[in-house]
Amino acid sequence: MTLLFALYMAGLAASAMSGALAAGRRSMDWVGVLMLAAVTALGGGTMRDVFLGHYPLSWVAEPWLLGVTSGAALLTVMVARYLHYLKYTFLLLDAIGLVVTTMIGCDVAMQMGQPVSIVVLSGMITGCVGGVVRDVLCNQVPLLFSSELYASVSVMVGAIYVGGHELGIGHDVVTLAAVACGLTLRLLAVRYGWGMPKFVYNKDWF
Amino acid sequence: MTLLFALYMAGLAASAMSGALAAGRRSMDWVGVLMLAAVTALGGGTMRDVFLGHYPLSWVAEPWLLGVTSGAALLTVMVARYLHYLKYTFLLLDAIGLVVTTMIGCDVAMQMGQPVSIVVLSGMITGCVGGVVRDVLCNQVPLLFSSELYASVSVMVGAIYVGGHELGIGHDVVTLAAVACGLTLRLLAVRYGWGMPKFVYNKDWF
Amino acid sequence: MTLLFALYMAGLAASAMSGALAAGRRSMDWVGVLMLAAVTALGGGTMRDVFLGHYPLSWVAEPWLLGVTSGAALLTVMVARYLHYLKYTFLLLDAIGLVVTTMIGCDVAMQMGQPVSIVVLSGMITGCVGGVVRDVLCNQVPLLFSSELYASVSVMVGAIYVGGHELGIGHDVVTLAAVACGLTLRLLAVRYGWGMPKFVYNKDWF
Repeated sequence: MTLLFALYMAGLAASAMSGALAAGRRSMDWVGVLMLAAVTALGGGTMRDVFLGHYPLSWVAEPWLLGVTSGAALLTVMVARYLHYLKYTFLLLDAIGLVVTTMIGCDVAMQMGQPVSIVVLSGMITGCVGGVVRDVLCNQVPLLFSSELYASVSVMVGAIYVGGHELGIGHDVVTLAAVACGLTLRLLAVRYGWGMPKFVYNKDWF
Repeated sequence: MTLLFALYMAGLAASAMSGALAAGRRSMDWVGVLMLAAVTALGGGTMRDVFLGHYPLSWVAEPWLLGVTSGAALLTVMVARYLHYLKYTFLLLDAIGLVVTTMIGCDVAMQMGQPVSIVVLSGMITGCVGGVVRDVLCNQVPLLFSSELYASVSVMVGAIYVGGHELGIGHDVVTLAAVACGLTLRLLAVRYGWGMPKFVYNKDWF
Repeated sequence: MTLLFALYMAGLAASAMSGALAAGRRSMDWVGVLMLAAVTALGGGTMRDVFLGHYPLSWVAEPWLLGVTSGAALLTVMVARYLHYLKYTFLLLDAIGLVVTTMIGCDVAMQMGQPVSIVVLSGMITGCVGGVVRDVLCNQVPLLFSSELYASVSVMVGAIYVGGHELGIGHDVVTLAAVACGLTLRLLAVRYGWGMPKFVYNKDWF
């Protein structure tokens, strides 16, 4: 549990950093940097809670989470010029964040007694939607819809996690399997540029 | 009731198809196609339920709705190259979807005892906002704000529907009148390019 | 209280006008003008209420608020060509709106017994997020993230307002202090172009 918590914090910080860097690419000021960091890191969980009617929202109940995202954002601004040395660390942290937040999202829906399909979707929304809101606020088409496997990794992690629990396998084993499979697939996807097939449609008529 | 349900399914599928085609125009992958389809078809009802505090959301209570939007999206990908033969069918289905989802949105607000203005607005949000979210995710100014009569049709349908019920006219008659007027106005608007007056403002000073 | 209410109405109208003008810059039709006006003026409070689970939303409980934003929008369309004579009046009204809606947002969170950090954040969301949604719907990077002090003014107003109440200072004194400081800082920021430091990041590597 303590390890998972540490991984969650690392993933949250990585998400916040990706939001801060996106803000920097649009030359935003510190207000934008802090907001993009918070929205990227906490937007997925917020959307999940609003959709499921699961109140209070995590950052309303625990405002120190906003301290974590703000701290990660300010750190990003300070060390931005050295960040390229940390590229692989960052990609690893981001993958960890994806996997851990997905499982947290599944937990929330499971505790509410939702059916399996909603549990997996809840994990996917928690893991992926923050980046979508970040991209919308940066005025670009969300990367989630065209880059390497990301939402698919989240769905796989959720399926393993929920499936394992449904089959009565122990919590620790299921968690470990989901983390291992999720990290492996995500890192291989980034390394080899694996993506889902694209749908290209150029007709104009409506 | 069964007819209305069939029309609702047809309208939902048409909305999902418009989302999938929008995803294709941005060369999104299957993740984007499935998400855009779901958001376009179910986003308006989701927004309405969140605004009214009406839980559980429709697709959380009935996850098979996501199966319908996903099926329509995959079908769109498969038959995309032949879709231009179905242009008029598609426009008709989309108009049906607008009218039927508007009435569903009015029903939800009426059952919550909302005042007439909120009932009509609830119908309009249900019928129109999915397309707004679709366009935002595709990084373009929403079509709803500049193309042929759409929100106006929705408001008219809602007004007929609510007004008829307030006047004590039978449910079937009111429904039929709303459908007939709504379809007629929408299809005439598309045929003849009717739109609301534009407001053009070019000053820069703030 | 009556004075605050009048200031709130003036601020609401100013927000609605800024939404209507943004719609005009994109050549939207009347549907877009009315929606942008409503979203800009009421979007911040809506987001706050959804985040805090504070139902019913203000405009659902009091639909006449939508009448105010629609009236302000139509007035904007009618007098658009003379608006440049009112530039300073508009900037003043907008600043008043920022300060007053921030305090209203703080009040809502305080009445819910939220901790100080969430109260200040609630005020900031109420005062600032409407403009963010307006800019997203106009397909541009939100001004809030790069222009003169705005969110910072809101945070300062919230801090004075909450801090004063925590210290047991009388409501009227606190309100007056928050309004005076907020208006002064905002108007000076506009006059002298004060902004937060920018974060510029141009690397491409992820």
